[in-house]
Amino acid sequence: MKKLVLLRHGESVWNRENRFTGWTDVGLSEKGIEEAIRAGRTLKDEGFVFDVAYTSVLKRAIKTLWLVLEEMDLMWIPEYRHWRLNERHYGALQGLNKAETAERHGMEQVMIWRRSYDIPPPPLTPDDQRFPGSDPRYASLSPSEIPLTESLKDTVNRFLPYWHETIAPAVKEGKRVLITAHGNSLRALVKYLDLVSDPEIVNLNIPTGIPLVYELTDNLTPIRNYYLGDPDEVARASRMVADQIKK
Amino acid sequence: MKKLVLLRHGESVWNRENRFTGWTDVGLSEKGIEEAIRAGRTLKDEGFVFDVAYTSVLKRAIKTLWLVLEEMDLMWIPEYRHWRLNERHYGALQGLNKAETAERHGMEQVMIWRRSYDIPPPPLTPDDQRFPGSDPRYASLSPSEIPLTESLKDTVNRFLPYWHETIAPAVKEGKRVLITAHGNSLRALVKYLDLVSDPEIVNLNIPTGIPLVYELTDNLTPIRNYYLGDPDEVARASRMVADQIKK
Repeated sequence: MKKLVLLRHGESVWNRENRFTGWTDVGLSEKGIEEAIRAGRTLKDEGFVFDVAYTSVLKRAIKTLWLVLEEMDLMWIPEYRHWRLNERHYGALQGLNKAETAERHGMEQVMIWRRSYDIPPPPLTPDDQRFPGSDPRYASLSPSEIPLTESLKDTVNRFLPYWHETIAPAVKEGKRVLITAHGNSLRALVKYLDLVSDPEIVNLNIPTGIPLVYELTDNLTPIRNYYLGDPDEVARASRMVADQIKK
Repeated sequence: MKKLVLLRHGESVWNRENRFTGWTDVGLSEKGIEEAIRAGRTLKDEGFVFDVAYTSVLKRAIKTLWLVLEEMDLMWIPEYRHWRLNERHYGALQGLNKAETAERHGMEQVMIWRRSYDIPPPPLTPDDQRFPGSDPRYASLSPSEIPLTESLKDTVNRFLPYWHETIAPAVKEGKRVLITAHGNSLRALVKYLDLVSDPEIVNLNIPTGIPLVYELTDNLTPIRNYYLGDPDEVARASRMVADQIKK
């Protein structure tokens, strides 16, 4: 049996301000730091060990990983960062306050952007200072790989090649893998592993800071999955994510 | 012109207790954390940017790197950890208080172990709990690669293959490289780059927490090197390293 652990980063300073973050590189809040430390402690207490870790190129996911590895005394394991694990790109909404956006565009339109599978928010233009092509961390991407906006479907499609080419082979080899990433890049993986339908995946909320353990066959078919930690805490965290859009 | 920056980790909790550390995986002290943050701030203020970083598999060097990258807002760059960048292995002296060792074996003998180029301290036996072969982070090493003790010469010899095969090609390619490592693995590199003689290298002290910048030709011949930061601070830090053996 193979095991794989997913961890969604905790609260960032923009979550707290209720702003659309996407590829904006904002740090964890104090609460987010505490969530990561608690996740690391839970993993250690439950006897988990990892051989390799994967994360995005965004500091809220990287810092989450660092805090977990420090807590588990596993700072020495190899750790790989890749843009394909980034959060969904939120296009021209990035940086806007979610409640303000709802007032301007209507709650219904915001819910469509947030909760439809294949409708992206309005795109950035390449002269926008938020355009990823101006950021050195994306210098190796081809123009067609640089998103101006993304639907969840787009996020799934750009995440999966990294899963197939890099992470899945490591799991198959027997490596114990930890992935610390974002709500939508982790949704992409859960959709793929559990064959979740398009309408269902948009309603599936992965709570922050709570390790999600997958047990898989040698061919990486899921046997079961479960969250680590107190069940009430897991339920509470899931509700909080669902409530985020509400003012 | 190519540039390369070396950084020796700051004070660890065992430095403070004046114990031989070597491959023992002890963390930074509060002072060591502050040294790393200050180094990161200096590098940022001086306009340095890095494309890739290399460090050892010991947490005092890894944490130093993380603090520097966080301070420089470069947490997303690739970061590689390798045992060949580890501190010199101090054999059976690891864990002993330096002053006690001097009392037991005589100051002269301790100075020979610390300051000779090719005389290693007494070796560990493979049944010693300090034997690196029992640690999962060294599981991929062949038996002949696992040290039981090391002279500085041994450290130079096991460090250089990683320089030639991995770091030097990255520098030649034009990558801006940061290495955060240890007193003796950095001595190994300085000896190689600056053609320092065996008797001279044992007296060369690299201060902790102060970035050492090398400017190199395209063939990696040094043009000049300099420490970043306040000259009095650099002089003071060098003296502190030299005084460490004294009770």
